[in-house]
Amino acid sequence: MIATGVAPLRYSVSVPAPDDGSTRARLGMLETTHGTVETPVFMPVGTNATVKALDPDDLHEVGAQMILANTYHLYLRPGHRRIERLGGLHRFMAWDRPILTDSGGYQVVSLGELREVDDDGVTFRSHLDGSLHRFTPEQSIEVQQALGSDISVCFDQPVPPHSSARSVVADATRRTHRWAERCLAAHDRPDQALFGIIQGGLEEDLRTESTQAIAALPFAGICIGGLAGDETAAQRRAVLDVCVPLLASDPRPRYLMGLGSPADLLDAVDAGIDMFDSVLPARVARNGTLWVPEGRLNLRNARFLDDPAPVQDGCRCRACRSFSRAYLAHLVRADELLFYRLATCHNLTFLIDFMARIRSAIAEGSFPALVREQAARAAVSDGPTEPAA
Amino acid sequence: MIATGVAPLRYSVSVPAPDDGSTRARLGMLETTHGTVETPVFMPVGTNATVKALDPDDLHEVGAQMILANTYHLYLRPGHRRIERLGGLHRFMAWDRPILTDSGGYQVVSLGELREVDDDGVTFRSHLDGSLHRFTPEQSIEVQQALGSDISVCFDQPVPPHSSARSVVADATRRTHRWAERCLAAHDRPDQALFGIIQGGLEEDLRTESTQAIAALPFAGICIGGLAGDETAAQRRAVLDVCVPLLASDPRPRYLMGLGSPADLLDAVDAGIDMFDSVLPARVARNGTLWVPEGRLNLRNARFLDDPAPVQDGCRCRACRSFSRAYLAHLVRADELLFYRLATCHNLTFLIDFMARIRSAIAEGSFPALVREQAARAAVSDGPTEPAA
Repeated sequence: MIATGVAPLRYSVSVPAPDDGSTRARLGMLETTHGTVETPVFMPVGTNATVKALDPDDLHEVGAQMILANTYHLYLRPGHRRIERLGGLHRFMAWDRPILTDSGGYQVVSLGELREVDDDGVTFRSHLDGSLHRFTPEQSIEVQQALGSDISVCFDQPVPPHSSARSVVADATRRTHRWAERCLAAHDRPDQALFGIIQGGLEEDLRTESTQAIAALPFAGICIGGLAGDETAAQRRAVLDVCVPLLASDPRPRYLMGLGSPADLLDAVDAGIDMFDSVLPARVARNGTLWVPEGRLNLRNARFLDDPAPVQDGCRCRACRSFSRAYLAHLVRADELLFYRLATCHNLTFLIDFMARIRSAIAEGSFPALVREQAARAAVSDGPTEPAA
Repeated sequence: MIATGVAPLRYSVSVPAPDDGSTRARLGMLETTHGTVETPVFMPVGTNATVKALDPDDLHEVGAQMILANTYHLYLRPGHRRIERLGGLHRFMAWDRPILTDSGGYQVVSLGELREVDDDGVTFRSHLDGSLHRFTPEQSIEVQQALGSDISVCFDQPVPPHSSARSVVADATRRTHRWAERCLAAHDRPDQALFGIIQGGLEEDLRTESTQAIAALPFAGICIGGLAGDETAAQRRAVLDVCVPLLASDPRPRYLMGLGSPADLLDAVDAGIDMFDSVLPARVARNGTLWVPEGRLNLRNARFLDDPAPVQDGCRCRACRSFSRAYLAHLVRADELLFYRLATCHNLTFLIDFMARIRSAIAEGSFPALVREQAARAAVSDGPTEPAA
């Protein structure tokens, strides 16, 4: 067992990757201020201090161990100082388990109308009212410390991995390194961990440089950023096959930001990743698409209006326990609020149970077999690979 | 104790109105195919086979004893035959307690684009797609029997009570009587009760005539329709003071359709009404207005953004147990789906607990004192009388 001893976060690998090189998948325990998390773990995203349509009881029921909240959104509304005055983000949203905050880097760099990046920080306009704001590494850390998440992450400059010129990627990557040091210097909240972020686009040498630069700093964990964007699955895997081996003897948790489909998570676990987050399962659910082992069901399809079966036989979720596909198909057509909750509960349960199955397979030494089984299933599925699980 | 013995519904008055004439409020038990309901009772409305934003567990938690579903909406979407094939409305929406269906009369007469009323029925256009449909008394009963509610009601012709000419009211009332007999003749589902509906607008003689006509027929209960519209509270009370005394020795439950504010319900219970339904508590909740004993809180008001208190101290609802006014004020501004559920839970809990308090007061013989206390409170409240409770 390897473990980091840096308070306020302790990570221990209970089942390391096997020596035979068949996989880099590993099992671990992440101990945070608000409890312990088994890895590999998927974190649902609670952008505005709520995982859309769910309350904390629902999150416990779907089996969420830890959630992510968005620094950019909470900074703009309702404001980090307000949340701090109200007792911090955990109390504000009544979630007593671990929370990870992102840095706002992705949002301010990629989502805003105006975004001007300079060496000191980023000037951007609010998507809510067009007002002008500025984030620096220090400001991002200040906001995250006020929110009081268990894990904060460095302010970085992600760029679209596939469509960015090498010089743009190189500049952003080196700026991210300089900002990482400033984040470390600014961070002083003792009950909150800080993770560094690797950038480098799809460039092997820049990913190598970035992994070495970030791993050299005393972060509690290592994020791999700038993926889950416009790259292909093969390009993403190639990047992970550069970064993760460089961290093979590093005792810290590895977090790939923004990935959310079962097939993608399976591949990234195989590549040695421990933590994930994405809005994908909840977003496709709200759009009417529910994940099942055979692929996915689009409940807007008329054939479900008379289907008395649950979405997924044997599923433990709130939607499948009580309701038919016919009822859910009715709710989505009537644009009923209950649909969004039930659909989100199902897709999150599906993905979280899939992660539990991954952990069991790692514990039993059968993870490579699970990867082969899923690949075979995806090959015969009629749907896209996204939901194969 | 007076009781009706007509299966499938049994109503027993456990505490009759006192002989001193201080109130006509009474306590009763309504035994239906899906369980027993204490009256006076408020029924939340599940228009599209869902009480908006809530699931059946939420309905149990707020204390709903019985709900109403809309025949017109379910006939149009997903279709009553479809619901019948799927095992009926209870199974479809996973609600195992009593359901009352309205007749569709209110919707087809008042809501449609085209509506042509003749002696045989009503031709109307769907609000969903403009398609042409026709409801007759027999068709309304057929739809309600297919849905399988515990209590069905007669197809009637309500008219706006205040703004309708006497001749219009008289025609609609007498047509309603003719339709009542046709509904009785058409109804043959043995596990479902059928209630008749009194009309008559604000005309004392027409209300008298209608009460006598409907009470003379072997319905399991008596609805008072054509109120909760554009009349004043005083006009409504005057109508109830005509109808209910005529039913003083009638053993059947009395149901005033469409009324939903605490102050209005208190007055109607005092007038001798046993059953109520309304979308009001849920609709105002979704609009950001939460009911409290002191009046109401509009959570869109900026002053709540920093308020750490629950909406209502001591309230047992899901919103008040875990969250601050500040959090709810944040959710409503961010248009987060969770807001609609939490706000609806609060207002329904508020109203259902208010009905429980009314029942306790009746049982203890202190109902007239409760009426005086609420009137005094409303007089000093800064808000409108709607939420006083």
